[in-house]
Amino acid sequence: MVAGLRVDLNCDVGESYGAFKIGVDQQLFRHVTSANIACGWHAGDPLTMRETVRLASSMNVAIGAHPGFPDLLGFGRRNMSVSEEEARSYVTYQVGALDAFVRAAGTRMQHVKLHGAFYNMAAEDERLARAVAQAVREYDPDLLLVGLAGSRMLEIAREYGLRVVHEAFADRAYLASGRLAPRSAPGAVIHEPKIAAARAVRIVSKGTIETIDGQEIAVHANSICIHGDNPEACAVAAAIRDAFQAAGIEVTPMRLALK
Amino acid sequence: MVAGLRVDLNCDVGESYGAFKIGVDQQLFRHVTSANIACGWHAGDPLTMRETVRLASSMNVAIGAHPGFPDLLGFGRRNMSVSEEEARSYVTYQVGALDAFVRAAGTRMQHVKLHGAFYNMAAEDERLARAVAQAVREYDPDLLLVGLAGSRMLEIAREYGLRVVHEAFADRAYLASGRLAPRSAPGAVIHEPKIAAARAVRIVSKGTIETIDGQEIAVHANSICIHGDNPEACAVAAAIRDAFQAAGIEVTPMRLALK
Amino acid sequence: MVAGLRVDLNCDVGESYGAFKIGVDQQLFRHVTSANIACGWHAGDPLTMRETVRLASSMNVAIGAHPGFPDLLGFGRRNMSVSEEEARSYVTYQVGALDAFVRAAGTRMQHVKLHGAFYNMAAEDERLARAVAQAVREYDPDLLLVGLAGSRMLEIAREYGLRVVHEAFADRAYLASGRLAPRSAPGAVIHEPKIAAARAVRIVSKGTIETIDGQEIAVHANSICIHGDNPEACAVAAAIRDAFQAAGIEVTPMRLALK
Amino acid sequence: MVAGLRVDLNCDVGESYGAFKIGVDQQLFRHVTSANIACGWHAGDPLTMRETVRLASSMNVAIGAHPGFPDLLGFGRRNMSVSEEEARSYVTYQVGALDAFVRAAGTRMQHVKLHGAFYNMAAEDERLARAVAQAVREYDPDLLLVGLAGSRMLEIAREYGLRVVHEAFADRAYLASGRLAPRSAPGAVIHEPKIAAARAVRIVSKGTIETIDGQEIAVHANSICIHGDNPEACAVAAAIRDAFQAAGIEVTPMRLALK
Repeated sequence: MVAGLRVDLNCDVGESYGAFKIGVDQQLFRHVTSANIACGWHAGDPLTMRETVRLASSMNVAIGAHPGFPDLLGFGRRNMSVSEEEARSYVTYQVGALDAFVRAAGTRMQHVKLHGAFYNMAAEDERLARAVAQAVREYDPDLLLVGLAGSRMLEIAREYGLRVVHEAFADRAYLASGRLAPRSAPGAVIHEPKIAAARAVRIVSKGTIETIDGQEIAVHANSICIHGDNPEACAVAAAIRDAFQAAGIEVTPMRLALK
Repeated sequence: MVAGLRVDLNCDVGESYGAFKIGVDQQLFRHVTSANIACGWHAGDPLTMRETVRLASSMNVAIGAHPGFPDLLGFGRRNMSVSEEEARSYVTYQVGALDAFVRAAGTRMQHVKLHGAFYNMAAEDERLARAVAQAVREYDPDLLLVGLAGSRMLEIAREYGLRVVHEAFADRAYLASGRLAPRSAPGAVIHEPKIAAARAVRIVSKGTIETIDGQEIAVHANSICIHGDNPEACAVAAAIRDAFQAAGIEVTPMRLALK
Repeated sequence: MVAGLRVDLNCDVGESYGAFKIGVDQQLFRHVTSANIACGWHAGDPLTMRETVRLASSMNVAIGAHPGFPDLLGFGRRNMSVSEEEARSYVTYQVGALDAFVRAAGTRMQHVKLHGAFYNMAAEDERLARAVAQAVREYDPDLLLVGLAGSRMLEIAREYGLRVVHEAFADRAYLASGRLAPRSAPGAVIHEPKIAAARAVRIVSKGTIETIDGQEIAVHANSICIHGDNPEACAVAAAIRDAFQAAGIEVTPMRLALK
Repeated sequence: MVAGLRVDLNCDVGESYGAFKIGVDQQLFRHVTSANIACGWHAGDPLTMRETVRLASSMNVAIGAHPGFPDLLGFGRRNMSVSEEEARSYVTYQVGALDAFVRAAGTRMQHVKLHGAFYNMAAEDERLARAVAQAVREYDPDLLLVGLAGSRMLEIAREYGLRVVHEAFADRAYLASGRLAPRSAPGAVIHEPKIAAARAVRIVSKGTIETIDGQEIAVHANSICIHGDNPEACAVAAAIRDAFQAAGIEVTPMRLALK
């Protein structure tokens, strides 16, 4: 048993939009420690945001904003060529909108994690990464910024004085470069809860992951992401929690999982 | 000359949306003391919100949120049958989004004023008025809520413990009921700066206004609204300021104009 | 057994929006004869529209446009104070958008049926009814216009030279006025397939329906609507088809069900 | 004087959106022969579409659809990673929506021209080009497709059996590659009407244009685009018309300008 290891489990929630219902947030909240709540641009609406904040708060799940591109039709998954100024102000707007519900509920926001194409683009594009870091810092420098483990964005965010959270994916295959294999690749998504759980334990306890072509690469992560849109999401989350317990790994909100 | 009189001048600004440009905000800011900034639903976008906050702040104009209905196509001017819960959460969302830019700029929000059809409906509908008052109070009970002078909404907001600002219109004709004459009525909009200025002075110094059919009714107001979308907006604003100075009426942000 | 009776069964479909999935269109298409396809405003998107047209066409379900208010967030269910000119052009736009997919598929549009709040408002508001009738006639006077059985809108549409389809609801309770009981009323929605089926047969064979307070009122209908958003939608549709067969009522697209 | 030369002048119009007003369409219609009308996605709304169709028709300007990306906030100017199927269906939807107003007005659509980022991306991306050509062909194979002179998209459209229109820009600087210099480059936009007019004449009569670095390259065009969003748009259009008349070049809708 490895002593003193801690990690956060996070998932994307609050993705319903009016009559369009998505997700099993309440069930996921039994398993995760941090929630990334959609802010109304790629998903989410004000009623959903209020209810999701209330639910997370009542179940002791830490709350984060999950800003996306202005692309409801594409669920924020399509790359868009936004400028630095746009990226910065899109984060400010969405973080503020969610924070209003958090404040109204008498609690505090823990973190910010970008969504979909915004997440992927900012991980590699320094220009966007700076804009995002600036938006978070100028709004509230105590907010954590979550990003792809080892990404350039997190280095930049540290230059801006932010505390950052390195995130890894137990249910996604990795390339040797440390990036995720595209969803279209065979085997890119891991559906078997036990396999995902074993990968999660390895990430936390050994700091490594096996790539899609069988190599072992280093991954240092403070948080493991559960994809809420998988049908197996709850089973995967439960298997990971069980495996963590067996391995002596404490699951705790990311603000407590930072070393 | 009347000693000790104070009043605020407010106007709606920040109404551009991407490539769609509206308004002469910078010119209006030379004349007014409070600005109602669109929050991205009926008008406004994140870049415009940031720039408008910066400009208002740099010109010592106090900042307020101006939430509207989710109706960009109708500029928030069409009645919509929203529920209480929707009304409440729409205010929370938009106030928070604007406040993020206000906080990022290191300053403070002064007030909330609803826009267009939302303003008109909430003025009379107790259900909506309660929802709006609740949203403001739970977000920040120090925010002022601006509404139609003498409206039921402001009574309700006081029950919720909010400080309220009674607003009157110097450039619009009134009905004997104390409501505004519909824009379609002949003479409903007063274009002549001198006439508007005389009406503004009368509102503040005498607490009365002449109705469209020649009666005198009581109007007690802490703030006079300038419609930024009139071509004569700046001329009207300048004429009012001159007339106020001649009448010994001090123009000051609404938080200082409250008795 | 009543000889020679014919009726159409219609339902609302194509309501998914990007990643937001709604409905069981393919299953419903086994039972109905006419489909009202959302046009992208209150629901629906271009990919969904193309696929729904293809599916309806391949399963011999007649195709209609289902225009709604510009209110995706409210699923077109909230009253909006649109002008006559807006109502007319909103219908033109949405009918044309759907018709493009119908033409591209090499088939023909049969009808137009308004959605939600637009349907309800136009049923009673002559101004809106005229605007809608004008839009349909100027686009294609051969299109059928579907509306609430006995509504003023259908009278007006006939004045405009349109062929109209009177629609009744087997799964909704009626008031003595001939309107639907509001969904919030106890018993407003009929979930039991057998009861809905018996009501459907009675509407077609006797031209009457029992109101929520036990009266019998006249309802003359060419089409019965199945609500696709009920979990029991398919069971209700199947029960109605069975009951119609037993009663010797032929189910046929509305263009053939008109007397 | 060159005998028998013909060319079309086109411009983008109908870009207002509700209360957001853009452009001087009526003035431009005195000079141009073809109009690209926004279809409600990047700009335009149903009332504006109807009015712009009416105005174009009454002034004998030929009508085309101008589909853009679903990005009102970015005015369709930002690259988006849309799939082939999305591109195809986005064209179908928007062409159909505009065509409804054209049909209602009793006239015919002449052409389709993509807008902004969609135009630029499809000019070079074969995948998108095929999707667009397919959408136009399946809707109406008699529609002309307008694109960048010499672009790969137009070759592909010809493979799909479409008649294509090669478009050149008299008021924009070219690179040696035949592409437009980016707007941010010094001298990229030509504001002087006489210079733009001389370039237009040279394109039509000699089939060449001078690049930003002084070379002469071949440009074969059936249509010259006037940018309606330049303050000098009308002056440029008038100067080009005068120069064409002096050079014996006939200005005629693009369907008549094709060789």
